[in-house]
Parts: sequence; C-alpha cells; structure tokens
Amino acid sequence: MTVESVGTAEHTLHRPRFAALYVQVQQFYAHRMQILDTHDTGRLADTYTEDAVLEPPSPAAPVRAGAGLTTTCAPARNAGAGSRLHHWVGMLDVQPQPDGSLHTSCSALAYVTPSAGGPKVLHVCVMQDVLVRCRGRWRTAHRRVTRDDLA
Amino acid sequence: MTVESVGTAEHTLHRPRFAALYVQVQQFYAHRMQILDTHDTGRLADTYTEDAVLEPPSPAAPVRAGAGLTTTCAPARNAGAGSRLHHWVGMLDVQPQPDGSLHTSCSALAYVTPSAGGPKVLHVCVMQDVLVRCRGRWRTAHRRVTRDDLA
Amino acid sequence: MTVESVGTAEHTLHRPRFAALYVQVQQFYAHRMQILDTHDTGRLADTYTEDAVLEPPSPAAPVRAGAGLTTTCAPARNAGAGSRLHHWVGMLDVQPQPDGSLHTSCSALAYVTPSAGGPKVLHVCVMQDVLVRCRGRWRTAHRRVTRDDLA
Repeated sequence: MTVESVGTAEHTLHRPRFAALYVQVQQFYAHRMQILDTHDTGRLADTYTEDAVLEPPSPAAPVRAGAGLTTTCAPARNAGAGSRLHHWVGMLDVQPQPDGSLHTSCSALAYVTPSAGGPKVLHVCVMQDVLVRCRGRWRTAHRRVTRDDLA
Repeated sequence: MTVESVGTAEHTLHRPRFAALYVQVQQFYAHRMQILDTHDTGRLADTYTEDAVLEPPSPAAPVRAGAGLTTTCAPARNAGAGSRLHHWVGMLDVQPQPDGSLHTSCSALAYVTPSAGGPKVLHVCVMQDVLVRCRGRWRTAHRRVTRDDLA
Repeated sequence: MTVESVGTAEHTLHRPRFAALYVQVQQFYAHRMQILDTHDTGRLADTYTEDAVLEPPSPAAPVRAGAGLTTTCAPARNAGAGSRLHHWVGMLDVQPQPDGSLHTSCSALAYVTPSAGGPKVLHVCVMQDVLVRCRGRWRTAHRRVTRDDLA
C-alpha cells in the first residue's frame, strides 16, 4: 500500500485520534437512541446543549431544544398506542471543525412494532448535527432532520 | 474545544485503546451475524464460552449455550422454508469492566426474504452480552435478548 | 482480562492502527452511500479505480466500472418514479492484505420511500469489495454484490 494521503483532506483520518473521536460519536448516538426509545425526556434533554436548535422534518420553523423535544418525540405518538419504537443510526460521517465542534451526518431509521402484528419501517431520515463538548460530554447544539417521505 | 472529560465517566473513551476495543466488538458481531445467517451451528457454538448462558426472548427459562443454540436459531425455522434470514446489529454500546470483560448492548434486526416476494423486517430486538476473552478471541459468556414484539 | 491474542489471527486487531483503518472504511461507505442516493454518477465513478470490476447481483457477466455504474444504479429505476432510495451498509468486516489492499465484506440494505405511502425494505444484499488506496483515498477495485432474493 502506498499511503498517498499526505496533504489530502483524508490526512487526519489516518490517525488513531480520529478513530477515537469517530467511535465516541458512534457510542454517543447508541446511547441517545436508547434514551429516545425509552421516552425519558429528562435524559433526552441532557443530550442537547441548553441553547440547542432543532430543525424538525416538517415545514415548521426551527425550535429551541426545550420545546423541540415534543417534536422530536412525535413519532412516539404517531406510532399508535401500545406500539414500541426503535431508532437506529448509521452511515455516520464525522467532520472535526477547527473550533473543536464536530459536524456529523448520518442516516436514521425508526422501526415500529405495533401491539399486534410484525415490525415495519416507519421513517427513513437524514440527520445532520453540530456536536460540541459541554459539561463533560458531547451534546447536540444544532440538529437538522430530513425525512425521505417529506423531502 | 475544551476537553472537559478528565474525571468523568467518558474519560476512557478519549483513548485510542477504547477505539481499538470498540472496533474489535463491531467486527466480532459482523462475523457472528454472518455465521448465524449461514446456519453453521459448529462455528456458531464457537462464538460462545463453554458455559455460556442465554436468556432468549420468550418466557422460557435461561438455557446453556449448547441446547440454547436451537433457540437462537429458531428464527430460521419461523421464517419458513426457502426463506433467507439476514441479521444486523447496530447502536452498539461497549462498557469495559474492571475484570476485563465487556458489557455490551446493541439493537439487532432480522430481515427475512421469502422465496417469493420482497424482504421485510421480521424481528427488532435488544441484545445485551457479557463478552470475555477466551482461547484467543472474544466470546459471549452471557446473552439476554429482548424482542420488541414480546416485551 | 488475559490478553491471549498473541500469535492469533486477531493479533492485529489489538492495535490502534487497525481501528484507524476500520473507521476509515466505515466513513468511506457512509460517503459512498450518500453519493449513491443523490444519483451523482460523476462522484460515484470517483469511488472506483479506473479499471474496477463489478459483479452485479444477477446472472449477467461482470462489467467494468464505467458501464457498470448503470447496473449499480438500477435500483433507482426499479424503485419507480418519484421514489427516494436510501442505502445502508453495516456488519462490516475488514481484512487488511499483505499488498496493502483491504478485503471487506458487509451487509447492504436499500430502503425505498415511494411518492405515496410509507418506506419499505427493497433489497437485502451482501457486498464484498477489494479496496485499494489510489489518488489519495480508498477506492473500490473489485465489487461483488449478492442479493438475498436472487441467491
């Protein structure tokens, strides 16, 4: 293998430091989706910065994280009584920024299992975050979600 | 970026060592699901410790790995003759323990493609493992699976 | 934990260097699937080496990457007018080779969201690549795709 990346945009990806960051972000989303699926709004709020802005997948205007959590949890209501939701994130791209924040992009799925009948895919989305380190952990400062059925 | 993690639970996540572990576990599950989908019960048994305990997603009591493999492979039977199963793991959380074992939690999907017709999601699960290093590789010592439709 | 891997095939997995590689490949596929879903054939071609060979999931003969891109993008046509496709890769296995190339195997999903109605799983596949570093980044030199419904 001729490592040709010196001077290219991929240069930083060679370093174990980037791998450590990427894995942290994977684990961040694993925790975050687990919290979302247990409808724990207190812990969910704690995954955002205090002044976070959400752009939900609808024509509605961006909202602050506090009020926006209702919007974020809307699939739980849409899924119907007795249903279980299961969120899933993948296809993660992480771009470290000069100011120390991370610009991330990923695909997000929501599976719903109704009280009767088998599971199905409810939503297919793209989620774009700005993550910042704040009070000891990564938190979402800005989130934009685009749903394939609304795009 | 102000790295604020010193003294927090996330401290170890900063280190390349954790990234190496996390990636090993991702590769472990990729191998393991590939083996499950080829119905190779010999190699499947080799992904467990000899005294592994499985808690299957049903009211049944926990079983030892040997007998439990039948249970683990049950989706293959449920899927119907001529169907192909495809398992998928994501949303991985890895928590290294002081004794060197790893506590993992992940989401697991089973897709089924019948001999006629398109694929669909068969099961959506949460899988919680205790992994230990044994005879040169990570193996499952304890596994608890919860299925969204039975939870 | 007794690290027992010295002398085993897993030895290299212990090293941060492998984690860095694995994470690069995860990011490679995240970019690649994003490009595929935007139908940007120019950027898509740039993810292959110039002499890449594709073995598509059909009885057809292998094709060179240039002509093969049409085949690769076939799901876009099959999905129907107004539909949105969303590709997803997971269960990644990466095997570094002595010549510096990487042999990878992964599962690949295509979700389709029609202009009316909810999303569903269109294809479940296994994708096996040979990746080489070329002109500053990883590129696919050989790809074999097997679809569960055609296997």
